[in-house]
Amino acid sequence: MKLVWFLPVALLIVTQVALGSNNGNNGLDMAAQRRAANIHRMDTIILLTYVSVMVVIVVTAWAFKHYRLRFIHESGVTLFYGLLIGFVIRYFGLGLLQSQTFDVETKNKTIVKEPPDYLMLEVKPEGGSSVSFHYELIEGFFADKRKKIEQQIEQKSVFSPEVFFNMLIPPIIFNAGYSLKKRHFFRNIGSILAIVFIGTTISCFGTGCLMFVFTSIFQMGYTFKELLFFGALISATDPVTIISVFNDMNVEADLFALIFGESALNDAVAIVLSEVIENFSTSSEAITLHDFGSAIAGFAGVFFGSLMLGFGIGCMNAFLTKMTLISEHPLLESSLFVLISYISFLVAEVCGLTGIVSVLFCGIAQAHYTYNNLSDESQSNTKHFFHMISFIMESFIFCYIGVSVFVTNNQRWSFSFLLFSLISITASRALFVYPLSWLLNIRRRPKIPKRYQHMILFAGLRGAMAFALAGRNTSTENRQTIFATTTAVVIVTVLVNGGLTSWMIEYLQIKHGKDAIEEGQRLENSMSCSRGEQHSDLEETIPVTMAPGLNPWDKAFLPRKWYHFDASFMKPLLTHATPSLEQTLPPFCLPITSLLTSSRQRAVSNPPN
Amino acid sequence: MKLVWFLPVALLIVTQVALGSNNGNNGLDMAAQRRAANIHRMDTIILLTYVSVMVVIVVTAWAFKHYRLRFIHESGVTLFYGLLIGFVIRYFGLGLLQSQTFDVETKNKTIVKEPPDYLMLEVKPEGGSSVSFHYELIEGFFADKRKKIEQQIEQKSVFSPEVFFNMLIPPIIFNAGYSLKKRHFFRNIGSILAIVFIGTTISCFGTGCLMFVFTSIFQMGYTFKELLFFGALISATDPVTIISVFNDMNVEADLFALIFGESALNDAVAIVLSEVIENFSTSSEAITLHDFGSAIAGFAGVFFGSLMLGFGIGCMNAFLTKMTLISEHPLLESSLFVLISYISFLVAEVCGLTGIVSVLFCGIAQAHYTYNNLSDESQSNTKHFFHMISFIMESFIFCYIGVSVFVTNNQRWSFSFLLFSLISITASRALFVYPLSWLLNIRRRPKIPKRYQHMILFAGLRGAMAFALAGRNTSTENRQTIFATTTAVVIVTVLVNGGLTSWMIEYLQIKHGKDAIEEGQRLENSMSCSRGEQHSDLEETIPVTMAPGLNPWDKAFLPRKWYHFDASFMKPLLTHATPSLEQTLPPFCLPITSLLTSSRQRAVSNPPN
Repeated sequence: MKLVWFLPVALLIVTQVALGSNNGNNGLDMAAQRRAANIHRMDTIILLTYVSVMVVIVVTAWAFKHYRLRFIHESGVTLFYGLLIGFVIRYFGLGLLQSQTFDVETKNKTIVKEPPDYLMLEVKPEGGSSVSFHYELIEGFFADKRKKIEQQIEQKSVFSPEVFFNMLIPPIIFNAGYSLKKRHFFRNIGSILAIVFIGTTISCFGTGCLMFVFTSIFQMGYTFKELLFFGALISATDPVTIISVFNDMNVEADLFALIFGESALNDAVAIVLSEVIENFSTSSEAITLHDFGSAIAGFAGVFFGSLMLGFGIGCMNAFLTKMTLISEHPLLESSLFVLISYISFLVAEVCGLTGIVSVLFCGIAQAHYTYNNLSDESQSNTKHFFHMISFIMESFIFCYIGVSVFVTNNQRWSFSFLLFSLISITASRALFVYPLSWLLNIRRRPKIPKRYQHMILFAGLRGAMAFALAGRNTSTENRQTIFATTTAVVIVTVLVNGGLTSWMIEYLQIKHGKDAIEEGQRLENSMSCSRGEQHSDLEETIPVTMAPGLNPWDKAFLPRKWYHFDASFMKPLLTHATPSLEQTLPPFCLPITSLLTSSRQRAVSNPPN
Repeated sequence: MKLVWFLPVALLIVTQVALGSNNGNNGLDMAAQRRAANIHRMDTIILLTYVSVMVVIVVTAWAFKHYRLRFIHESGVTLFYGLLIGFVIRYFGLGLLQSQTFDVETKNKTIVKEPPDYLMLEVKPEGGSSVSFHYELIEGFFADKRKKIEQQIEQKSVFSPEVFFNMLIPPIIFNAGYSLKKRHFFRNIGSILAIVFIGTTISCFGTGCLMFVFTSIFQMGYTFKELLFFGALISATDPVTIISVFNDMNVEADLFALIFGESALNDAVAIVLSEVIENFSTSSEAITLHDFGSAIAGFAGVFFGSLMLGFGIGCMNAFLTKMTLISEHPLLESSLFVLISYISFLVAEVCGLTGIVSVLFCGIAQAHYTYNNLSDESQSNTKHFFHMISFIMESFIFCYIGVSVFVTNNQRWSFSFLLFSLISITASRALFVYPLSWLLNIRRRPKIPKRYQHMILFAGLRGAMAFALAGRNTSTENRQTIFATTTAVVIVTVLVNGGLTSWMIEYLQIKHGKDAIEEGQRLENSMSCSRGEQHSDLEETIPVTMAPGLNPWDKAFLPRKWYHFDASFMKPLLTHATPSLEQTLPPFCLPITSLLTSSRQRAVSNPPN
């Protein structure tokens, strides 16, 4: 084996000769090399910081669960760690990055209207050919030259809003849809939709108007449109913290459904509202009635368009998994499931619709149809995959919100604005919770009791979506104040409301723990008796034959119609459920229905003797 | 409920007044808004394209598996789709992006040596205060002004090498370690390490020297260092394609272990070699013997440092999962597992070691120790999670390699260079496969037969790692040629060698299918009899008492020592395996060992009567 070592020594001699013939361009080449290495080091340090904090967060979360500490919630702890890290980066991390900034003069004076996306810098080394460097515009405007180093740290440790919207938020929302406890959710669907649509709209305009009154009185120089935008984005309540407290404490299922339903769906409403408001009169003229009408139409179009798109893509995947034998290869099957779910988000965004709404309803469709076609392995895989991804993303976002307080330069703090915001938000939330509950209670059985109403008001925590919406455009000082205020509102509500939730549950005497479970089971038993079948959370199916008067569904016309359609057409078409289409559709459809009926459906319908 | 609709109408009137008081900055604000929207749209279109292609790839992969098509392999198909998409983007996608580029003059003439990282552009609107825009340097130099639009498309659809190294590669390599079939791997460890270390080094220097001869003859103007760098990066063979063909065909386990072991580990060697070569004499002077000695020392230090670090972090996680009761919360447990595995990569990179080596051995340690401590749910979760992530990342990379051929501008094609490369690569691979096998066969039982040697030569496919290494720095024309050539080599080997693998297996009369399985089971039975226990792939444990002469391990001194140490110290320390430390260590250690023994271990050691 000694032969092997001769080779390098021989090479050495060759190398001595060879390296002499280096061409003159080596300086710039090496500079590029050094630069790549520096960037890599910086990126990994930042990533390592975040990932390490998340490990600490997971261990802390475990310790909190294990020792049953409830005075502060996990997301509160996560936020706190984030603040700590941000503080350290801000005051001790300035030496990390050293790079150059040069001021340049432009040849071309027409760039005032819109900054160019790219700059080119041509350099002519002495006696060499010219080399050009290309520069890309960084988001945000920075007016202060002395903030250079801070800007550079910000560049590195701040994620672009694009990452938030394209990568971090979709899995969280999908998981919300995929793991939805459908029974309680659909039992309260009417109230939830009322709170989501009417409530969020009231909250948006209420906050906007109140803030406009405040800022006008104190002459803070905000336009009504900016404040409406703020009202829209701050109306997105966050499911994460409250739901995890509710889960730990086993709170009554109906209250759970109301609060979860609101917070999962109103993100979508808030995002659509804020987009509509942003697009209001781009020419900065007054809003006309026509604008407003078209905004309402646009709102409805965008919301239901996204809903149909997401649901449709979910159904498409159900059909695909039903008709192919891809369940023989669970790896491919799970991958397909994940990719198609993500596509529902991307297609909606590309079409100018709202990806969040789309991905939420894709999740619901996937849980309702596709899930039943998956192999056992994929069922478990996809469930745990999204659960874990969603948990990691959430922890990351809360940590990041904390970090951003110290690290970013696009937050401008105004304590009076923050104070007014907290007042306006609470007032406008009260403005819809109580009147809307009163209206709903006229027809609703069981009624929403007062203690539920207080809890809904209290549960208005803000989170990732509000933060991401506010951080999307921070080009003006007013927008920077809005961003900083949103961050502060998230921190305050998560720490204060989140920390006091369990105390509030006790105080309002809301059933939880064993009481709630027993009541839930009693209710469930009576329901499943009336329906004549048993349900698990995800595999829940709606019975074809409903005993009228016993089932809560037959009160409303539209839901009843939908469930008949679902049971006799959608389920047989998209899953292996029986009765098959051959049995539910009239006989003249047979040529088509026999194509769409799987062998598994036939085997169940006509069992071999 | 009609009350609700009065509010918007009332607001309308307020708005009419309010929006009139807009300040003058609106133009730039709106421009930033439009810009954000445009970037978002562009990003989602590109993402959608990639994700859609991946859905098609998954469905195709399923169809290929289902109809047992073997003339071309999945990664070949993926590459092909990538090429197609790249072609479409290149020739039909030019209209997608429209943005501005302005030429600028610099005030400061000192930037020749190194381009600044940031540029600042100050704009003074008429009668307004100045606004500054910040620009960040884009990787790569572009000399040709007319290529503007193509550059912009490239900016958008090309991932930075950072994304490759920090995000896409680590899960693939971790999964390789985590799902390693340890029994066959360790049985062939000596041969594998010889091929990996000596073979890869010969391949690197052999390719470099041959290419230097070729390029010198044809006066192509490459330095020896550049060609050595090319030799290093092109020596990284790829496990993906070949392993999936071998898996499908159930090829003999020993050959499988040799080829998998080589391709999984030599990525690490190639990456370390290429880094060492890059750092050779940064002052562009000749290499001295001292340089070379320190390079060898550096190589060993980096490799074994990374190995120990990764293994250590894996062990740390095993200890953590053993001593805490985190397995009661599978979600937290799985998240912790994923995060800590990723940390092993990041820590190594930050310390200046090689993340790939670290993450590979972290994977092996996690499979060997941590896996046994996990709850059943987490065992299945983590296995499937990494399997799926790794599958998706691999598909993405192959697709992306295809796209890059048409879309990037940092590839410079040279067909003579490609031709010489293919010859050099094959020759230098033959140069180590046959001599090294001959040397190994002197002591090895069973010997490596000739047909294995031919297969190892044939299985030298190149993939993601070579591509990523080559794309990391493309600042000079020579580097661009190297990048283009690497891409071409990947495509050629994956399409030709990958496509012909199954044919080659038949031609070389290598046992596969039922024959190989039967032989494997016969061998396994005889081995497990001699060891007195049964093994599953992942839970494999090494017996404490080995019958000398029967077990293949007792031939080598070092492996035997390690396995005794592992069984009597590491396993009892890091897992719930018995005998516990209390039993394996001498009694005077009792105060410490009793701390480190879990109640589960005690329960098994001292079963209650």
